[in-house]
Amino acid sequence: MYTLYIANRNYSSWSLRPWVLLSELGIPFDEKLTPFQHGTSSSWTLFRTFSPTGKVPCLHDGDITVWDSLSIAEYVAERHPAVWPSDARARAWARSAAAEMHSGFEALRSHCPMNCGIRLKLHTTPASLSSNLARLQELWNEGFTRFVGPYLAGATFTAVDAFYAPVVFRIQSYALDIDAAAQAYVQRMLALPSMRRWYDAALKETWRDPDHEEETLRQGTLLRDLRAA
Amino acid sequence: MYTLYIANRNYSSWSLRPWVLLSELGIPFDEKLTPFQHGTSSSWTLFRTFSPTGKVPCLHDGDITVWDSLSIAEYVAERHPAVWPSDARARAWARSAAAEMHSGFEALRSHCPMNCGIRLKLHTTPASLSSNLARLQELWNEGFTRFVGPYLAGATFTAVDAFYAPVVFRIQSYALDIDAAAQAYVQRMLALPSMRRWYDAALKETWRDPDHEEETLRQGTLLRDLRAA
Repeated sequence: MYTLYIANRNYSSWSLRPWVLLSELGIPFDEKLTPFQHGTSSSWTLFRTFSPTGKVPCLHDGDITVWDSLSIAEYVAERHPAVWPSDARARAWARSAAAEMHSGFEALRSHCPMNCGIRLKLHTTPASLSSNLARLQELWNEGFTRFVGPYLAGATFTAVDAFYAPVVFRIQSYALDIDAAAQAYVQRMLALPSMRRWYDAALKETWRDPDHEEETLRQGTLLRDLRAA
Repeated sequence: MYTLYIANRNYSSWSLRPWVLLSELGIPFDEKLTPFQHGTSSSWTLFRTFSPTGKVPCLHDGDITVWDSLSIAEYVAERHPAVWPSDARARAWARSAAAEMHSGFEALRSHCPMNCGIRLKLHTTPASLSSNLARLQELWNEGFTRFVGPYLAGATFTAVDAFYAPVVFRIQSYALDIDAAAQAYVQRMLALPSMRRWYDAALKETWRDPDHEEETLRQGTLLRDLRAA
C-alpha cells in the first residue's frame, strides 16, 4: 500500500497533484496530512522526517521513497499504465504539458497562490501573468482539439489533468479570465468526485498558515472566505 | 531520427541535459542550435518557430514535438531503457532526483547561472545557496552510497547524471565549495567524452548574449574568461 504525505488541502498545490491522480484512478493509498508550520524552516524541519527535500508531496512504498510530484506519477505509472494516455502521441504531449507546469508558469504560481477557500479580485494583472494565461489556454485548447476531450489528453483523466488541477482552483479563486472551452474544462474538473472531496475537505480545515495567507492577500482584495471559522 | 533543438552551449543549461543524455548513450540525433537573441521576447519569438513554449530544448521525432527536458528523457526512455537505471529502486531514486532538479535548486540556478567558459568569484554566498549546496551534496552522496557509483544512480550514466550535468559546469565556473566525493564526481563528469565535446564547443562560441553576460557578471568578480574572442 502506498502512503502519500501531503500538507493542507487549502494551500498545497503540489500535494493535490498526486492525491487527485491516485484518487481519480482508484489507486488505493494511505494519506498522511501534516499542516504547514509558520516559517519555511519550521515546515522543512518537520517535513524532513518523511521527505528528503523537506517538501510535500512524498510517496512511501515499503522502504522506497519517491519525493516529487512528477516522479510519483512516473513511479506509479510503472504499475498503473492508466496514469498516462495509452496512445503514444497523446502520451508524449501529456508528459510535455505536465513537465511544462512542473518547471514553469512562474507568474501564475506566484501571483495566484492556491488558496481553495477564498475569492479574491487581483489588484493588477501583470504582463507575465497574462502571458502565462495565454499559454495555458493555447495548451489546453491544443489538447481538446487534438485528443477530442473531455480531458486534456483524451477520453480519460490522466496525470496531465492532475498537474493542472491546482490551476483549476486558482482560476476559481481569482476569477481568471479565460476562454469558453477552458472555462468548460474548469467546470468539468471541479465536478469530478475527487476534486469535490479535496475542495470540501479544504473548506473544513481550520488551520491558517500566516505565510500562505499573507502571500494570498497581498495579491488583491478579498471578496469572500468560504472556509470554516 | 530525432532532431534536438538547443541554444548556445555556453549558457543553455536546459539544452545540455537531453544533449548529453543522447550523446553519452549513443542515441543518434540531428542537432539544431539557435543562439539566444537579445531580450527574452526576441528569443521567445524565434524559438516559437520550433518549440511551443518558445524555450529550448525541444525534440522533434517526425511530427511529434516533445518540448521539455524531462519529458524528452521519458519519451526517449520508452525506446531506450538505458535512459533510466534498470533496477527499480535506483530508477525511483533517479527519477526523484532528476525531478528535484527540474523544479528546484532555485538559488543555485539564479546565483550561479551556467556560463561554461568563465571563472568567477562570488561576491557572497547567500544562505539559500548554501542550503542548495548542502542538499546537493547530501543527495549525491546518498546516490554514491546506495548505488556504489561511479555515476549518481549506479554503474552507468543515466538521465539523473544528465540532469545534474549543468551543475557540474556551475561548480567549475564558480569554484563552489563541495566535499571530496562530490568533487570527484564533478571531475569524472568533466572527463566524459560528451561533456568534453560540449565544453570545447562552448568555448569556441563567439556569440555573447548581453542578458546572460549581465546575469553572470552581477554575481561576482570575473577571474578568467576562457572563451574564444
